[in-house]
Amino acid sequence: QAAWREAVRLVAAFPVIVAAYHRLSRREEPIAPRSDLPHVANFLYMLHGREASAEIVRALETYWNTVADHGLNASTFTARVIVSTESDVVSAVTGAVGALKGPLHGGAPGPALDLVFEIGTADRAERILREKLSRGERLMGFGHRVYRTRDPRADVLGSAAEALFQSAEARPFYDLARAVEDCAVRLLREYKPGRSLKTNVEFYTALLLHGVGLPTQLFTPVFASARVAGWTAHCLEQISANRLFRPQSEYIGGHDRRWMPMGERQPVAEERRGPGGWGPLVDAPWWWGRGLWGLPSRG
Amino acid sequence: QAAWREAVRLVAAFPVIVAAYHRLSRREEPIAPRSDLPHVANFLYMLHGREASAEIVRALETYWNTVADHGLNASTFTARVIVSTESDVVSAVTGAVGALKGPLHGGAPGPALDLVFEIGTADRAERILREKLSRGERLMGFGHRVYRTRDPRADVLGSAAEALFQSAEARPFYDLARAVEDCAVRLLREYKPGRSLKTNVEFYTALLLHGVGLPTQLFTPVFASARVAGWTAHCLEQISANRLFRPQSEYIGGHDRRWMPMGERQPVAEERRGPGGWGPLVDAPWWWGRGLWGLPSRG
Repeated sequence: QAAWREAVRLVAAFPVIVAAYHRLSRREEPIAPRSDLPHVANFLYMLHGREASAEIVRALETYWNTVADHGLNASTFTARVIVSTESDVVSAVTGAVGALKGPLHGGAPGPALDLVFEIGTADRAERILREKLSRGERLMGFGHRVYRTRDPRADVLGSAAEALFQSAEARPFYDLARAVEDCAVRLLREYKPGRSLKTNVEFYTALLLHGVGLPTQLFTPVFASARVAGWTAHCLEQISANRLFRPQSEYIGGHDRRWMPMGERQPVAEERRGPGGWGPLVDAPWWWGRGLWGLPSRG
Repeated sequence: QAAWREAVRLVAAFPVIVAAYHRLSRREEPIAPRSDLPHVANFLYMLHGREASAEIVRALETYWNTVADHGLNASTFTARVIVSTESDVVSAVTGAVGALKGPLHGGAPGPALDLVFEIGTADRAERILREKLSRGERLMGFGHRVYRTRDPRADVLGSAAEALFQSAEARPFYDLARAVEDCAVRLLREYKPGRSLKTNVEFYTALLLHGVGLPTQLFTPVFASARVAGWTAHCLEQISANRLFRPQSEYIGGHDRRWMPMGERQPVAEERRGPGGWGPLVDAPWWWGRGLWGLPSRG
């Protein structure tokens, strides 16, 4: 049906758009896709203008398949809410991309790589990490919102990264990253004893994508290019048994309020003031303070 | 802060974009906004190139204010989910527009007007409406998903529409619409006795926007131009006490499944087949069949 065709076209279009945009941003001519190449190999071809080695393609395919879907993360949930109005899949995926932009989404592995670059050599790891932890900084690449144990995707991506870095010239960076990881996990146990902060999927992703030769600014677009398969699959599932998302909200504002000309209004107390200083927006969501979504209550 | 500035710019920009796009689509030059005119008067000026009468402006302002916000409808909810990732307000509103496009959102009053046009004269109302109801067609402009009683916004918009149609040349269309409404409500009681289907807000909206002189294809863009105030207000509220939307999902698929090359897979039973014929997508949302969102369970 129409939604299925939209989904297939979107999965096909993302790598073409990302590769073309990246080349244009560097003032290079975009390269047309080749129909004889598999999906991921084709992306690398459009990016560089030459076929990548089998090892590189295999590593990026492993990443691509591993991150294709991950439950009802915020971008996937966005896509399902949009398509639940019987809007089109392109609109749903556009909304999902907007959600993926947000730093809390956690699809951006760039910062984990920055940490490794900043440390530079294994002997500097402990000093720099201790400084960061003493200042209360968060270490990017460790810990996950949902997983308290090791993220099951981390092993898959870690092995793929290790296979990629077997060559003599690539090995030193891999060894450095693993040294940073070992040191970070050890120090996190020391500084945050109760927290169980493990290496997360962003750390190995950063390692793998760097090994594949992708620049940091392509990490999120490549993530989107892989995840669009999950977004569209969720859209098709939503369409197949649709119900409009339209949560109830609970009114927690005052009653018997009357409209008053702007000039006659009293300033409200600081703690109830909205961005314009005109008092709170009163339509509170129905889960307010109730600890739904499996999260602790706001109390 | 940045989000507040984005919100103000979005509320200001929507009417400018809608008016310019509409004029360009008719091969007319866009008209620059005038800073001396109020918001809604400015929109009508940019659309027509002349100032609208005070009655027209007042009627459209009433519509604009009445529909500015309406709880956690699907588009508003979309905006909150997107901004909950700490993405920007423009991305959130882009997603909201994508949700508003969907026919289930119910922000599109065009079809209610089509019904009045199709009937044309009051004496044809009963025959045409009986034909539609006998064929099991839904009458657009009657009934609402949430309200079982009369939608409280309907009175405000109905009075504004009535005030607008006082002139001798406008009165006949208003009388026709009211005759259609009376007949439809009477017949709905007869054909769907238990349902309590009242005239909804789309019916009076269609009447009012038609009276203001807007073509049907501008109804949804004008709705978006008014609703963007609500979308951005919800975004600011979400930002002020943010928590990432990341619902849990419950896995209801099979266990111990193994990957199998495409050629070796068995076709699955019809009722469990996804769009590609490869079996269901297995990640079911956590509320599946549980009747959350205040809706009856899927059983």
